This record gives sequence, structure tokens and C-alpha cells, in this order.
Amino acid sequence: MDNAAFEVAVAAFKADREQGASELARQALRIMGECAVTGQADTSSDLVALLEQRVQILTGARPSMVPVANLLQRWQTKLSICDGKELKEARVGLAEDALDLIRLSEDAVTTVAKNAAGFLGAGKTLFTHSLSSTVLELFRKLQGQNVQAIITESRPLNEGYKLAKELAGLSMPTTLITEAQIGLFIEKADVVVMGADSLLPDGSLINKTGSYLVALAAREQDVPFYVCCESFKQRTDEMGEPILESMDPAELSAPVIEGVTVENCYFDITPVHLISGWIDEIGVRLSRS
Amino acid sequence: MDNAAFEVAVAAFKADREQGASELARQALRIMGECAVTGQADTSSDLVALLEQRVQILTGARPSMVPVANLLQRWQTKLSICDGKELKEARVGLAEDALDLIRLSEDAVTTVAKNAAGFLGAGKTLFTHSLSSTVLELFRKLQGQNVQAIITESRPLNEGYKLAKELAGLSMPTTLITEAQIGLFIEKADVVVMGADSLLPDGSLINKTGSYLVALAAREQDVPFYVCCESFKQRTDEMGEPILESMDPAELSAPVIEGVTVENCYFDITPVHLISGWIDEIGVRLSRS
Repeated sequence: MDNAAFEVAVAAFKADREQGASELARQALRIMGECAVTGQADTSSDLVALLEQRVQILTGARPSMVPVANLLQRWQTKLSICDGKELKEARVGLAEDALDLIRLSEDAVTTVAKNAAGFLGAGKTLFTHSLSSTVLELFRKLQGQNVQAIITESRPLNEGYKLAKELAGLSMPTTLITEAQIGLFIEKADVVVMGADSLLPDGSLINKTGSYLVALAAREQDVPFYVCCESFKQRTDEMGEPILESMDPAELSAPVIEGVTVENCYFDITPVHLISGWIDEIGVRLSRS
Repeated sequence: MDNAAFEVAVAAFKADREQGASELARQALRIMGECAVTGQADTSSDLVALLEQRVQILTGARPSMVPVANLLQRWQTKLSICDGKELKEARVGLAEDALDLIRLSEDAVTTVAKNAAGFLGAGKTLFTHSLSSTVLELFRKLQGQNVQAIITESRPLNEGYKLAKELAGLSMPTTLITEAQIGLFIEKADVVVMGADSLLPDGSLINKTGSYLVALAAREQDVPFYVCCESFKQRTDEMGEPILESMDPAELSAPVIEGVTVENCYFDITPVHLISGWIDEIGVRLSRS
């Protein structure tokens, strides 16, 4: 992969609005794996220098996608080990490391779901908000175990409707509510399970707007609130303050009125003191509070 | 008004889905005023007996409309005073009493808004949810006083859009958000002002679903939460447990999926401990907590 081809790959990676953060992280690893095999270099030192540079560029292309930074950083730790190795050996080793991390990332979702299913057990009513692939995987693991779901529409794009269809496919009795009804229905749940966009260094949750309201209602009604996500979604202090992205206000389909500002912020922060525990691919970590 | 005409009036009163609770209460008083003037009776005792019976019927026609019960009850207290009076005098007196209560009810909204405007003062950012005629009147009183508004869509029927138009007409800078963003935007408000469907005997608020979430977020962010409503909206212990009405789930326009139950409950209860104070036509009552 020469510079021109890499630039094309980065542009496509930057423009991708279809895939989630974890899938993009795997895509970044695929690009780096290819760079390791075909990047122009005469020695392993040359190769490492080139790859170091390209990792920075890829990471910077999607700064708010925490799994991208985290998985690339893990791969990057392998670079220094290769410095001084025979070039071909370095190429093969780094490409394999990228593949290993891709598999690790793919397995992580399944393992998180397995850990969550084991911890929560059968016969519960689970409450969730928005659509998380990890939480959906958890529902799949709980199929046929007398589990019910209470889910939200998730305005403005209503990804709750997609989740409702998936749950119906699992024959899981499901109640669909507006966000406004969160406070009314939380008491009917045994537990809240929430996916994550990312986690702040202190464990606070960045997730689809409205998650914070679910957490407030859950605390008030003594319903435990668990976050289910892969460890790659953990932000570090070095990443700085998170940016809570806003999308096009037109997504709300509200009337356009002069003097009225329509807001469409996609993420909110659920502070750590409202979280009962975190379930990742390693296990269950319970809150100290 | 003979029995047949009264039955027609009751049927129309029962079927009315257009008017709010306070307007319906005034309509009930108009009906009773007419009954007082033209109801068939030979003596004032006959008249009082007839009116007692009809008051019960009208009250029972809209059991969840608290102002109807409250204003009719106030009028009913005048009946015993008339017993034994000259018939014509009784008729005129009771019709005037009904008119007085109608005026009292009309003035109450204005007085509540005036009290709230005086208490809250100029230069604030007010947060509200759904559309309350009392809160709208408050915004009118605060026009030109450097006040800003943060308001919600209020799914499923989006009465927030109507409020946004009204506020734009007052040239009041307004931010419109989804219910999901309540937790994000509450911190930008100085105070929450909420209308009421009714108040429980202990002061807890029954209002459009989502009000409870606003109150939870307001407490968490130290934003005071005030209820603005006429005293006629106070429930008494004798009214028993409130019924939180649900409307047609089709209002959500969610896809129909087998196994998925769509809920559309219109009201939630904000417990008294989340309320900073109540503003009615008498004045401001602050919470003890």
C-alpha cells in the first residue's frame, strides 16, 4: 500500500457513517495489516517508522471513536518489538497481530454478552435504551429463558423499532415506550442493561441521549443499572474531554420556526455514581457505591 | 332544562375531547346555571333536590377531571343555603353563583401566571414540558423581560411544537429538544415551571408523561422545580386513587410487530419530594424539604 492508496483508504475510513465504532476499529486494523505487508520499506526500521506515522493518521481520522484509538494503540505496542527484526518476518508478524486483534474484538462482543447473561440470569425483565449490538447479543443469549424486555423508541431515528423487531424474532415479550414514559416503566424492570458509546476514565457512561434519564429513574426506583461493553470502549485521560456530537436538527421533523432553535445532541453522560456495575469481556465489575 | 335536554347536555359534556379540564369545569357550571333557572320545580326544596341529583351526574360524567369535581362542589355548597327561600330568588341566586365561579376560574389562570411571574422575576431561562395554558400565560406575562425558554417536543402528539410557535410570537428565544435530551439541557435552565393535570392530596404532581423525568434531572442538577396551577386542580382524599389514562398506541406511529406491546400512558406522577414549590392564585407555597 503506497501513500496514494493509503490516502484513499483513510478518506473512505473518515467518510464511513454506516458502521459502528467497533467495526470501524476492525477496519482500521485491516488497513494497518495491509500496510504492514505491502508498505514501502527497505528495513524493518523503515517499516516501523512508516507504520507509526500511518497509525497516527488513522487514529486522528476518527477522534471520537474510542475503540479505533484503543485497538490501534494495542497494535502499535507491537511495532517496537519488530524494530531490528528481519523485514519479512516483521511484516508477517505485524499482519498477524492485526488479525489477532480483529478476532479479539469480534469475540469480545460475544464474551461480554455471555458474561452479562450469566450474571443476570433467567426470568428477568430487562430495560434498555437505544440499540446496542452488545445488548442485542445479550438478548440472543437469553432467548428461551423467560426474559422480557422494555425498550424505548429512541428519538429521533427510532432505533428502538429495529430492536423491537429483533426481539420479536427471538420471541421475547417486549414493551415499547416513548422516552417520556421511562419514569413510568422503569419500576416494571428488574434491571437496566445499557450499551456504551464509550466510558470515561472514571467509568461514567457516554451513550445515546436519554441514557442519563434512565439512570436517574433507575436509581429513584432502586433498579440496578449495568453497562455492557467491550473494554476497548474505555477512554483514557490522554484522550482529553469527550465531544458530545450533535446531528442535523432536521432529523426531528419539527416545524421550522424563526427564533426557535432545535437541538439534536446524540450523547449524554451518565455519571459514575448512578452506575451499579460494568460488564465487559473480562467479567463483572461492581460499583463501590 | 328538562330531563331530556339535560341528558343531551351531559352526553355532549362527556364526549368533549377538545377542551381542557378547567374549560370543561366552566362548561359544567354553565349547564348547572341553566338548570337552576329553568329546571322543573314547584318549590325551592324541589329545585335543590333536582340540582343535587344533576350535580352528581355531571361530576360522574368526567371522573378524572379534577377541576370539574372541585368547582361543582363549590357551587353545591350554595344549594343548602337556598332551601326554603322563595323559588325565583333561589333560581336567580344559584345562577349568579355559577357565573361567579366561572369568572373566578377564568381569573385564576391569569392570577397564577401573575404570581409566578412576580416570584420568578425577569432575565431567567425557564424549562417546561408539554403545553400548559397556565405556563403559556406566564410566558406572556414575562414577554420583553429577557426571558428564554427550553421546551420539549412532548411525544407523541408534540404539543411542544404549538408552544414553540406561541413563544416565537412573543419573540422569546426558545430551544426545542426531544424528551431524551431533558438531562442534557436542564442545567442550562434557571428554573423549571410545570403546569398540572391535577395535584394529589400531598402535593405530588400528576401531569403529562415525562414531567417526572424533568423533576429527577432538575433535582440532580440543583434546578428548582415549580408547579403552576389553579387551586381547583387539587385532589382530595375523597377522590380516591387517580387513574393515569392511556391513549391509543397508534399515536406513536410505531411499526406493528407481533409480540411487541406499544404503551402510550399520558400521565406520570412527580412525587412531592421532587417539587420545590407550588404557585396558585393565592400565592407561592414553598416545599418544606
